[in-house]
Formats: sequence, structure tokens, C-alpha cells
Amino acid sequence: MISSITLRVNYSETDQMGVVYHANYLIWFDRARTELMRETGLTYKELEQQGVYLAVSEVRVRYRAAARYDDLVQVRCWVRELASRRVTFGYAVERAGTGELLATGQTSLVSLTHQHTLTRLPAHVVDLLKPIPDPVDL
Amino acid sequence: MISSITLRVNYSETDQMGVVYHANYLIWFDRARTELMRETGLTYKELEQQGVYLAVSEVRVRYRAAARYDDLVQVRCWVRELASRRVTFGYAVERAGTGELLATGQTSLVSLTHQHTLTRLPAHVVDLLKPIPDPVDL
Amino acid sequence: MISSITLRVNYSETDQMGVVYHANYLIWFDRARTELMRETGLTYKELEQQGVYLAVSEVRVRYRAAARYDDLVQVRCWVRELASRRVTFGYAVERAGTGELLATGQTSLVSLTHQHTLTRLPAHVVDLLKPIPDPVDL
Amino acid sequence: MISSITLRVNYSETDQMGVVYHANYLIWFDRARTELMRETGLTYKELEQQGVYLAVSEVRVRYRAAARYDDLVQVRCWVRELASRRVTFGYAVERAGTGELLATGQTSLVSLTHQHTLTRLPAHVVDLLKPIPDPVDL
Repeated sequence: MISSITLRVNYSETDQMGVVYHANYLIWFDRARTELMRETGLTYKELEQQGVYLAVSEVRVRYRAAARYDDLVQVRCWVRELASRRVTFGYAVERAGTGELLATGQTSLVSLTHQHTLTRLPAHVVDLLKPIPDPVDL
Repeated sequence: MISSITLRVNYSETDQMGVVYHANYLIWFDRARTELMRETGLTYKELEQQGVYLAVSEVRVRYRAAARYDDLVQVRCWVRELASRRVTFGYAVERAGTGELLATGQTSLVSLTHQHTLTRLPAHVVDLLKPIPDPVDL
Repeated sequence: MISSITLRVNYSETDQMGVVYHANYLIWFDRARTELMRETGLTYKELEQQGVYLAVSEVRVRYRAAARYDDLVQVRCWVRELASRRVTFGYAVERAGTGELLATGQTSLVSLTHQHTLTRLPAHVVDLLKPIPDPVDL
Repeated sequence: MISSITLRVNYSETDQMGVVYHANYLIWFDRARTELMRETGLTYKELEQQGVYLAVSEVRVRYRAAARYDDLVQVRCWVRELASRRVTFGYAVERAGTGELLATGQTSLVSLTHQHTLTRLPAHVVDLLKPIPDPVDL
């Protein structure tokens, strides 16, 4: 499964170079990941209510072209890898309309208890997070 | 007591107009308020550990001149008003060096329990938060 | 005209109190204001391309109930007041579904040239920004 | 040269997991990089005034332990690699006092003209940015 969200670049996301400040892409990744989980049938909110927290343990982003104010941007998200206590998501950020690739990236998240100790991903979560081959080079 | 912090404008705080995006001033206010409380002898962190939460209930800001990238900015903070369940802080943002007034504002915070219900400010907190006359017009 | 956007609260917008950090409402206001302008037929992006910049000169927010992670939130926006060099927008933030009022506010913006000096709002902009009575108490 | 900044975690940087939201580390990296450049004798602000823009082209972060509200955090920054049109900075985020390693990372920046086309780093900039061996594993 590949999930996709479309978002409009807001003024608050730009910097004085006239482009989207790079840290905002991590927030876009988060929003896309949240929707991917929702589409699998389990929201991240429910997961926390079940006592399972996913904390970001690693991030990589490659910025390829600038997103600008008022651009419509599409963020695709998928599961790259799944281990017993860790899941890695991949992302592709594209300009809506043209499909121009703006950025790619990945984030790894580890499964934590409410006390912030590592724990196995629950079986029903593992069943939902099916890794697929990357649709674009990261 | 008037507390003061000095901060350097970071690139992430600018927008494509080449100035500090207006929402960031609320974060500067928060940082100044945190230091004011620390200087009274009670950190906000300790207050939360005692089960008292201060939630922002009202904000007002007047923007007078733009702060820019790499500017050194001074934020002064003081207690304006104190009631049994509410405290109002005042703020003045000035360019360090010249003293040019960039913004003024105020935030009111209400006292909440961990369950997010209104509660009286503890007596030892009231004793520390002494209102003073505004040093600048807000 | 009253414009309305619906947004999903992202994890990045929460704080350790488990609610949306208060400064984020200003960003929501910005997003709602941008869509209001787009619906009038003139995007803010085009306005900047015509050499007119709108800078926030005053903000007021009253926080009434907390927005939480993954909530769907509706932000309504309208023009409150219009003067030759200044326009004031009003906002109401409500929980989608229940309509519970979460916050209200207003922002005033002044018209600037590219050199950041005050200027009159162009006639074609004034024609589009029609003030209406507040639909809710601010 | 290794530059170091110390910062206090603000409430705005926390999320509902009670830790610093991961995207904020990129902002801390930016602040540390800015100070490193200032210490070499050339501020990034001056570089932009000379028509040279550094845009982030790649980011990697490994999160090792959580930073929390009101923590004092030290961010060290150094130059890892230097090429004709690209410079890579390394970062180590540590809890002040204990020295506990919270995160490591790197960002690569490419040199752009005002028109956002790739350009060589000016010779006087290359002279200032001396790569050193990593003081910690990234």
C-alpha cells in the first residue's frame, strides 16, 4: 500500500530564501505516515491508547528541488522495512500537477512502552504494516 | 521583577518576506516567561511536577517593527495581573543594541489540574508572581 | 463571505500537556486567511507578485477549549474591518462534527510595499475584501 | 574547529509523548552551524549579502535518547567534508552536565546563486571551512 496526501505550502513554512524551510519536510512525512496508518485500519492515536508508542529513531532526507509558497505538494508514503521492534517508512514529495520530485526520505520508528522502553510491535500492527519495494529511488 | 532573555533570530524563524514570521513571537514570549518563573525561584517544570498546569487562555500581540535574520533580540517579561486562577504576563521585544521596540504583547494563563479542570493557583505560586506596572505601553 | 478550512491536528502540533501548542493557532489562521483570499478570486501569492505585501500588525486569540492530536478542526475566516491601509480578519476554530468552539481570534494586516513601507491597499483588493458582521463573539 | 551552543528546551519543542519532537533537532543543527560559521569569522548573513546561498541538500539524524522539557542541551558542530560546491557538517547533541549523547547527525549544503543555480563555494569560504575527523560516531 502507498498512501498519499496533498498539502498546500503555507507562508509559515517558507524562509527568507523564498522556499520551504527544510525541517518542515519531516512534518510532512509525519502527516503522510499518519494517513498511511489510518488507511491500514489502525490509527496511530489508537495505537497510543493501546500503550504502544512509535518514536523516530532515524531520519534521512534528500532535497532535490525547492517547494515554494502556495505550491500544492503530494507526499507519498509506504512501509520499506519491518522488524520486530522497528518499522521504516519511505517518502516521496512531488509537486502536484507536474509530478516533479522535490524530496525523498525515510524515517525509522521504534516501538516503545508508555515508560519509553523498547518493546516488540504488537502482532496486529505487524500484520497491517506490509513492506513494499520503493516506488522511487530514495 | 522584570526578566530578560536575549536570543538570536534563526533562519527557521524567517519567512519569505525576509522577516520573522509572526507566530514565533509567541514562542519567544514562552521562553521569556519560563525564565521569569525560574528567576522567582520556582520553575514551571517543578510546577507541573506539583500537579499544576498553566494553559494559555488569551494572547495579544502588537507588531511594531520587523525582526530579521541573525538579529539579536531582547525579550522582557513581567507579571501584569494576578487573580486566583489566572495570571497575565506582559512582554516587550526589542532589538538588542538599539533598543528599538519590535513588539509588545500579553498572555493570560489559567491554572489547571492534571485532568485539565480549572483550579486556584497555589499560595506559594501567588506569592512569587508579583504584578508590576507595565514598563512600556502594550 | 465566510471561508472555511478543515485540518487534521498533527503530532508536531501537540505539546507535553497533550494539547495543541497555542502558537499553532496563528498558523491555522494564516491558512484560513489564505483560502479566504483565494475564494475571493485573488490569491495572496498574486498580491505579492503585484508588489503588495500584507504584514501582520496585531493578533488576538481567546483559547476556549483544547484541540487534541488527530482531531479534525474547522477554521472559519471572514473580513471584520477594512481601512485604506489595513484589513482585519476574524476567526473561529471549532471541532469538526460537534461544532464545539475551541478558539476565536483576529489578526490585523497592514499593506506594505516591497521596501516594507506602508501603502494603501489597491482598489481591486479593497473591492474583494468585504467586511461582514462577526458570526461568533470574538 | 568544533563549535558548541547550549540551549534550553522550550515547551513549544515538546510533543504529547513528553519529549522533544524530532524535527526540532534540524533547527538546533541550523543554530549550531550558524555559530560555527560566525566563529570562523564569516557569518552566514554576510555570505548571503555576498550573493552566496547555502541550501540543505541532505539530512541524516540518529536519535539515541530523548531530550525533555527544560533540559539544557549542548549541540556541537564541525565540518565533515568540503567539496567545490558542497559542504557537510556533523553534529552531536548531548545533555549538558551528564554529556549523555542524545542525537547525532549531518547535513550537506550546496552553494547556490541568488537565482538558485549551483555555484562553486567562494575561495574565501573554502579557506574557512576546514574539515576535521568526527569527534563522535555519526
